[in-house]
Amino acid sequence: MNRPSDLDTLIARHQDGLALPREFYTRQDIYDYDIAAYWNQSWIWVGHESQLPNPGDYITFDYGQESIIVVRDKEGALHAHLNVCRHRGSRVCTESSGNARVLVCPYHAWTFELSGQLRSGRAMGPDFDPGKWGLFPAQLRVFQGLIFVCASADAPPIDAGLADLAPLTAPFGLDRLKIAHSASYPVPANWKLAVENYMECYHCAPSHKEYARSHTLKAPHEMEGLMEPLQARSAAIGLPTDIYHTSGAAAGGAGADTYYRRYPLYDGFETGSRDGTALAPLLGDLTGLDGGATDLQIGPLNNFLIYADHVVGYRFVPRGLQETDIQIVWLVHEDAEEGRDYDVDALTWLWHVTSLDDERIIRHNQEGVNSQFFQPGPLNPMEWGIQSFYEGYLGLIAKPPARHAAE
Amino acid sequence: MNRPSDLDTLIARHQDGLALPREFYTRQDIYDYDIAAYWNQSWIWVGHESQLPNPGDYITFDYGQESIIVVRDKEGALHAHLNVCRHRGSRVCTESSGNARVLVCPYHAWTFELSGQLRSGRAMGPDFDPGKWGLFPAQLRVFQGLIFVCASADAPPIDAGLADLAPLTAPFGLDRLKIAHSASYPVPANWKLAVENYMECYHCAPSHKEYARSHTLKAPHEMEGLMEPLQARSAAIGLPTDIYHTSGAAAGGAGADTYYRRYPLYDGFETGSRDGTALAPLLGDLTGLDGGATDLQIGPLNNFLIYADHVVGYRFVPRGLQETDIQIVWLVHEDAEEGRDYDVDALTWLWHVTSLDDERIIRHNQEGVNSQFFQPGPLNPMEWGIQSFYEGYLGLIAKPPARHAAE
Amino acid sequence: MNRPSDLDTLIARHQDGLALPREFYTRQDIYDYDIAAYWNQSWIWVGHESQLPNPGDYITFDYGQESIIVVRDKEGALHAHLNVCRHRGSRVCTESSGNARVLVCPYHAWTFELSGQLRSGRAMGPDFDPGKWGLFPAQLRVFQGLIFVCASADAPPIDAGLADLAPLTAPFGLDRLKIAHSASYPVPANWKLAVENYMECYHCAPSHKEYARSHTLKAPHEMEGLMEPLQARSAAIGLPTDIYHTSGAAAGGAGADTYYRRYPLYDGFETGSRDGTALAPLLGDLTGLDGGATDLQIGPLNNFLIYADHVVGYRFVPRGLQETDIQIVWLVHEDAEEGRDYDVDALTWLWHVTSLDDERIIRHNQEGVNSQFFQPGPLNPMEWGIQSFYEGYLGLIAKPPARHAAE
Repeated sequence: MNRPSDLDTLIARHQDGLALPREFYTRQDIYDYDIAAYWNQSWIWVGHESQLPNPGDYITFDYGQESIIVVRDKEGALHAHLNVCRHRGSRVCTESSGNARVLVCPYHAWTFELSGQLRSGRAMGPDFDPGKWGLFPAQLRVFQGLIFVCASADAPPIDAGLADLAPLTAPFGLDRLKIAHSASYPVPANWKLAVENYMECYHCAPSHKEYARSHTLKAPHEMEGLMEPLQARSAAIGLPTDIYHTSGAAAGGAGADTYYRRYPLYDGFETGSRDGTALAPLLGDLTGLDGGATDLQIGPLNNFLIYADHVVGYRFVPRGLQETDIQIVWLVHEDAEEGRDYDVDALTWLWHVTSLDDERIIRHNQEGVNSQFFQPGPLNPMEWGIQSFYEGYLGLIAKPPARHAAE
Repeated sequence: MNRPSDLDTLIARHQDGLALPREFYTRQDIYDYDIAAYWNQSWIWVGHESQLPNPGDYITFDYGQESIIVVRDKEGALHAHLNVCRHRGSRVCTESSGNARVLVCPYHAWTFELSGQLRSGRAMGPDFDPGKWGLFPAQLRVFQGLIFVCASADAPPIDAGLADLAPLTAPFGLDRLKIAHSASYPVPANWKLAVENYMECYHCAPSHKEYARSHTLKAPHEMEGLMEPLQARSAAIGLPTDIYHTSGAAAGGAGADTYYRRYPLYDGFETGSRDGTALAPLLGDLTGLDGGATDLQIGPLNNFLIYADHVVGYRFVPRGLQETDIQIVWLVHEDAEEGRDYDVDALTWLWHVTSLDDERIIRHNQEGVNSQFFQPGPLNPMEWGIQSFYEGYLGLIAKPPARHAAE
Repeated sequence: MNRPSDLDTLIARHQDGLALPREFYTRQDIYDYDIAAYWNQSWIWVGHESQLPNPGDYITFDYGQESIIVVRDKEGALHAHLNVCRHRGSRVCTESSGNARVLVCPYHAWTFELSGQLRSGRAMGPDFDPGKWGLFPAQLRVFQGLIFVCASADAPPIDAGLADLAPLTAPFGLDRLKIAHSASYPVPANWKLAVENYMECYHCAPSHKEYARSHTLKAPHEMEGLMEPLQARSAAIGLPTDIYHTSGAAAGGAGADTYYRRYPLYDGFETGSRDGTALAPLLGDLTGLDGGATDLQIGPLNNFLIYADHVVGYRFVPRGLQETDIQIVWLVHEDAEEGRDYDVDALTWLWHVTSLDDERIIRHNQEGVNSQFFQPGPLNPMEWGIQSFYEGYLGLIAKPPARHAAE
C-alpha cells in the first residue's frame, strides 16, 4: 500500500482546533492508506466471548478489504488469524460464524489447525514445508469478555490501559453478558465522519430529540449540576465514580487511548429507555439502577455505553471511501431471557432512532465536505473528542507503516 | 483540486474541426477539474423567480459535488450561497425548496441570516467572531425572471450580453412565466457529450423522427427557404427577427456566450406540438402564433427553446464522470391554468420523446468513445456549435483556476 | 492508454511457481493496461459461422470498453471491424446480432459498407475524403467454423498452430455445429482469477462434486490409469489420440498458445452428462461415444471442452477491474433438433452447476486477494496451466504496446 506522496503536506495543513482538510474525506488513496496505516494498526472490537463458548467455534470480522478469524481451539484458547489462504489467497472462512474441527480453505482444501498452522497443503509434494505456510496471526486481547484484535504485529500498547480500566468496569460483569441484538446502519460517508459524529455531543441537542430528553451529555452545565447526586447513587449500587482518560504518549502510544466516565441521565430516567424505567436485569454485581451512563472507550475505534441494565457497543466499519457501516450491538446479562426479562424493541429503541438521525446528518456532512469550496471550520469546545481523535489519527498515519504480524 | 499534469498536452492535442481527444470523456481527474475550472466558473440557470415569490422562499441546485442555495430575503432581494456550513461542512439546506426565516444547519444548528451572515455559532464561546463564518456567496443574476448563479468570484462578464438580449426576448414576457413541468433524463455519459448533442442538429434527421417532422433546423437549406416568410409572421406578432451571437473575446471573455435566433417550423406547425396547434396561451405581449422557434443561449451551459406559447429550458447536469442528468423545464404564461389552458402530456410530448432518443444516442456515443481505439473524427459544418463549445471550454480550463467568491 | 510506471517492478516481483502479486488483481491502471496490452493483442473467440449464414448477417462482441463487429458481406466473406464510428465515436452496431445491407451509425447516419469502407459521410462537403474514414479493421480467423478476432494489427501468429490442430479436431466436424444455448455467469473478480480457475483442476475435487464424479482430470493418477483404454476407444470412433501443446516462443510468440488433449471420463460415463448417457447426436464423423473429453485451447483466452456429442465453449470476459462474465456456449451437431435430439436442461446441467461453484470460489478468492496481507503462495504441480498463463500474460504486457490494425 503506497503512502500518498503529499500526505505530509496534507497533515501539515491541518490546523489545531479546525476540522481536517477535505482530502482526508474524499481521496481514495488516503482511504486505502487509512486501512493500511490506521485500521490495520488499531485494536478493533470484534465480539464477545459468549459468541464462542465451545472448541471450534469461530467468528469472522470484516473491515475495508480485510477479514479476521477468531476461533477457540480444543484447549479453549482463542486465536486470531488473517482470513487469507496462504496458497492463492482465498478467504478461508466464508461465514460470519460457525464451528469447525479444522479450517479448510473452500478453494483447494488446504487445511489449517485452529491454531493457524497448516496441517496439510494437499498433494503439494515432498519438498513442501507446511510449517512456512500457516495463516498469518493477528493480535488478540480479551478484556472482561470483550474480544479485540489488531492485524499488525506492532499492536498499540493497550495492556496498561486495560489493567487500569479493569477495576472500574468490574462491577458491570462484562464477562457475563450476551448479545441481545445487533444492527448495522450503512452511511454513505467516510468512516472518519462517522467516528467524529460519535465523538461529540455538540450535535445532540439539535439532532437527537429522543436522546436529548434523557441524556445530559448534550448540556455540559446541566450535566455538572447533576453529577454529585449521580455519584452518590452510583456508589450506592457498587460503582466507582472515577473519570479515567489516557491518550497519546500518556497511553503508551497512538491507538492505545482509553476512557471511562459515568455521567447522569435526567431525573426520571433510571436507564436509557423511552419511559425511563429498566429494560433488562441488573448487570454484574450491581444492586440497583443509578440513572447514569458510562462512556467507555477502548482504543480510538471502540465505544461502549454502559447503563446499569444493558450495554450498547459501537463500531464504525469502513467499507469504501464513502461507505461506512455503523454497527451497534446491544448486550444484556447472560441469564436474561428474551420475552421474559427484556423486549428487543424496547431495548433497542433509543439507539435505533438515534442512529437513523445519525445516518442522515453524517450523510449531509459528507455531501457538504465533498464540495470543492469546503474549508475546515472551528471546532466547538464540546468537540474536544474530535480533536483528540485527530491527534491519534494523524500521529499514526504520519509514521511509516508498520509491518503486519507475520512479516 | 489539482490540475491534471498533462492537461496542456491534451489541450494541444485537440485539432480544430475534430472532436476532443478521448481523455476528456473518460478520465476522472479531468472530470473533477471540469467541475472546478469550468462549471464553478460558469453561469448556471437554476430556476425562475416564480419559484420564490415570498420572503424566506429558497431553492437549491446541485451539480457535480456542489450545491447552491438561492433565497429571497425579507426585503425581497435574492441571494445565492454555497450550501456548505462553515463549521464542519454539512449541507445547510437539505431540501430542493422550502421557506425559512433563517438558514439553520441541521447538524449543530449554526444559524445563518438569509443574507448568508452567521447569526450565531451556538455556544462557540466569547472569542468567536461570527462575522468571519458566513456562508460563502455565489454570484447571482436575474434576467427577465430567469435566475443564474456562478460559484466563482470571477464570474464570466455576462451583463453586456444580457443587456443586448433584453429587447430581443422582451416580447416573450419571460418574467411572467411559471413552471408547468420538470423532468430529468439520466444519461450514462460525460456531460460534454450531452452538451455536444444539444449543440448540433446534424443528428436530428437520422435520430429524431418526431422533431424532424416539425423543425427545420435539421435541414439548413429548407430552413433558409422558409426564413423570410417566418420573419414576416414574427414581426406581425411583435417579435424582432435579429440574429444575435457573441462568444469568446467578443463576449467579454470565456463563459459569457449569448445567442438568439428565431427559425421556422415547417408549414402547418404553429408551435412545437404533435399536431402543430397551440399548446398554451400566448406568451407575453405576443398577438399570435408565428410558427417559429427561438434558440436562446445564455452562457455555454444554458439553453432555451422559445415558442410563441411556451418555453423549454435545458440543462446538462454532471453527476459523475459518465453520469449526466438532462434536465428539462417546461414554462408557460403565469396565468395559464393546467387542465383549462394547457395539458401537461401534450405540452411535454415532443421534448420527452426527443430526450428518450437523445439518452440512447448519447449513451452509444459514450460507449464508443470509451474504446481505446476511438480517434476524434471530423466535425460536420452543421456541428459549428460544438466547435464553439470546445473553444470556450478549452479556453476556460487552460487558464489557472480562479478562486471562489469567498477567498 | 498509459503503461503503469511501476509495471516492470511488479513484473520483476513475480516469482516462478508463485501466484501473481496482489496489484495485478486490484489496481485499476493495471486492469486498463490489461485491456490495451493483452486483450487487444490476443485472439478472442467471438462466435460460430452458423450465426451468420447470410450476406449482411452480423454479430457484435464486447469486452472491457471494446466492441467488435463481425459481418458477412455480399460475396460471403467475413469481416471484423472495431465498432466505433469514425465521426464522433458512437457505436455503429448497437445490437448483439442482426442483418444489414450497410452499417449505418445511429447518431448521424454515416454509412459504412459491410467491408468497413465509408460509403458516405452525410453532407460532409466536397473536400471530405470518405476513403480516409472507414471503420478500423480487426484481424479475423475462422477455424473450422469457430470465429476468432484480434483488435491489434500485430495479431499473435496463430496460423501454424491452427494448421497443426486441424487434423486433430477434424473428426468433430466443428464447422457443422450450431449453438444450442448460451449463458453468462457474472463474477465479482478480476478476469485473471477466472482464467486461473479454469486453468487448473487442483480445485476440482474439493469444489466440484458433480464434475468430480465423472471427470478424471481432478485425479492425475487415476486419469493415467484410464488413459490407455480411452485411447483404444477413441481410435475406434475415429479420433486421433495425440497430445498437442505449443506455447511461448515454440508457438511463434506470446498469445499463440494452442493445446489439444483427450482425457478419460470415469467408467460408466460416455459423455459429460448427469447419468453418463449421451446428450445429443454424435458430432461430425464420429461412430460412437468413447467416454472421453477433449481440452482444446486456441490462444490463451479461448477454451473448448469437446465430448463426442457436444462442445462447451468458454470465455472469461472482463467488464471491470473486478467484474468478469464467465460466458459458456453449448454447441451440438447442426442437424440436431431441440426437443427431439437434445434437451437443453440436460445438456447444460453439468457446466451450469459447475459454474455456480466457480462463481462462489472465484469471488472468495478475490476477496482474500484484496487483503493488504495477501502474499502469493506456491502453486501446486496440478496448477501448471496457471504458470503457463502467467508466462504468456507477463510476456505480452512486458512489451511496449502494439498499435492497432488501423494505425
